[in-house]
Amino acid sequence: MEKRTELYRGKAKTVYTTDDPERLILLFRNDTSAFDGEKVEQLDRKGMVNNRFNNFIMTTLEEAGVPTQLDQVLSDTETLVKRLTMIPVECVVRNFAAGSLSRRLGVKEGQALEPPTFELFLKNDALHDPMINESHAETFGWATAAQLAKMKELTMKVNSVLRRLFDDADMMLVDFKLEFGTDAEGNLVLGDEFSPDGCRLWDKETGKKLDKDRFRQGLGGVVEAYEEVASRLGLKL
Amino acid sequence: MEKRTELYRGKAKTVYTTDDPERLILLFRNDTSAFDGEKVEQLDRKGMVNNRFNNFIMTTLEEAGVPTQLDQVLSDTETLVKRLTMIPVECVVRNFAAGSLSRRLGVKEGQALEPPTFELFLKNDALHDPMINESHAETFGWATAAQLAKMKELTMKVNSVLRRLFDDADMMLVDFKLEFGTDAEGNLVLGDEFSPDGCRLWDKETGKKLDKDRFRQGLGGVVEAYEEVASRLGLKL
Repeated sequence: MEKRTELYRGKAKTVYTTDDPERLILLFRNDTSAFDGEKVEQLDRKGMVNNRFNNFIMTTLEEAGVPTQLDQVLSDTETLVKRLTMIPVECVVRNFAAGSLSRRLGVKEGQALEPPTFELFLKNDALHDPMINESHAETFGWATAAQLAKMKELTMKVNSVLRRLFDDADMMLVDFKLEFGTDAEGNLVLGDEFSPDGCRLWDKETGKKLDKDRFRQGLGGVVEAYEEVASRLGLKL
Repeated sequence: MEKRTELYRGKAKTVYTTDDPERLILLFRNDTSAFDGEKVEQLDRKGMVNNRFNNFIMTTLEEAGVPTQLDQVLSDTETLVKRLTMIPVECVVRNFAAGSLSRRLGVKEGQALEPPTFELFLKNDALHDPMINESHAETFGWATAAQLAKMKELTMKVNSVLRRLFDDADMMLVDFKLEFGTDAEGNLVLGDEFSPDGCRLWDKETGKKLDKDRFRQGLGGVVEAYEEVASRLGLKL
């Protein structure tokens, strides 16, 4: 299967059509962005690492019963996926306080959140991805009540699967975001990607940041940290 | 019943203990504030108008089956109320877009919201009353799931009662906020106040603002507008 037309260029991935109307190709680029695209850099190997990492996590989730967009990896930086109609709402689970939650609610970074919080954000750069709630999504037609309930259920399931996976590799899954879409039959399916670009991972002992906060905060060693995460999970890149 | 100790001084009301441990006195002051207390003015008659207005609305809601804090008006600016343990979460319903919803979500002021949106905000000046969701309230112990469900149910009931009340008097109830607390038996009860300080009311024909936006936006005639609202509802001040 080969790339045909560019359908959508995101901040770190490009989506292409294929000859199969029900399949798309995701190209993981080296572009790394933060602060609504204000800070952008090219980081060697990042596209490859995230592509491989995403394939590993999505396979794990699929095996745990979470329907995902994944079809198969095509190359170092390309993956074939099912075509979805994406829902413009990001689902965020937090097991520990960090980032915007700490800032907005005055909660110390690292505080355990029990039960984990569940948040929705509108995917909209111009509005800076504002936090929304279920009622906004329904009123403005971004998602139905049934879709929102399923998104929450699947997101919490992903959390229980991945929290243990990372814990077993001596990492804390601090928080992560997921995006969902619907397939041709209207089923809700996990789309986009799961990589250290869209989650926070801390070393359990030292608290060392192993995720995109290294880039946001200018800590350096971004891709090296992502590779360390992969290696700890037993993933050969 | 007379005021004893000052228990809490809010931006527009002061709360006093009484000789009855289950009763408090609310004193409605003339202070009018906006932007987290950055803009404050004394407006003649406002304490009296809001006290009378609140009594009228709370009585209407009580008759419609909404449990309220109201006991009885004591004077032009004082009302005896049941003592509640207040929940630090504001419930906001919006029938039309305005204010922070318009700004945050890029929605044109005046756009009808169908179904009306329901939002929660943390009552915290230092954090600028951030929007929160049910999961934050549960995780941080601000309200239980059962309390949140009841708060939403009662807020939507208040909306259906008041939307009609104002519509019959040629006004649009654009949005409003409510605060709840629990009484000695743990029942959820509507507290605080309902006045043009905490809602948006527009004239149905002209769109003229009849609420605290006149103060926020420096439009003048603030208390005169509140008095017009009262007069349209048949309330003698």
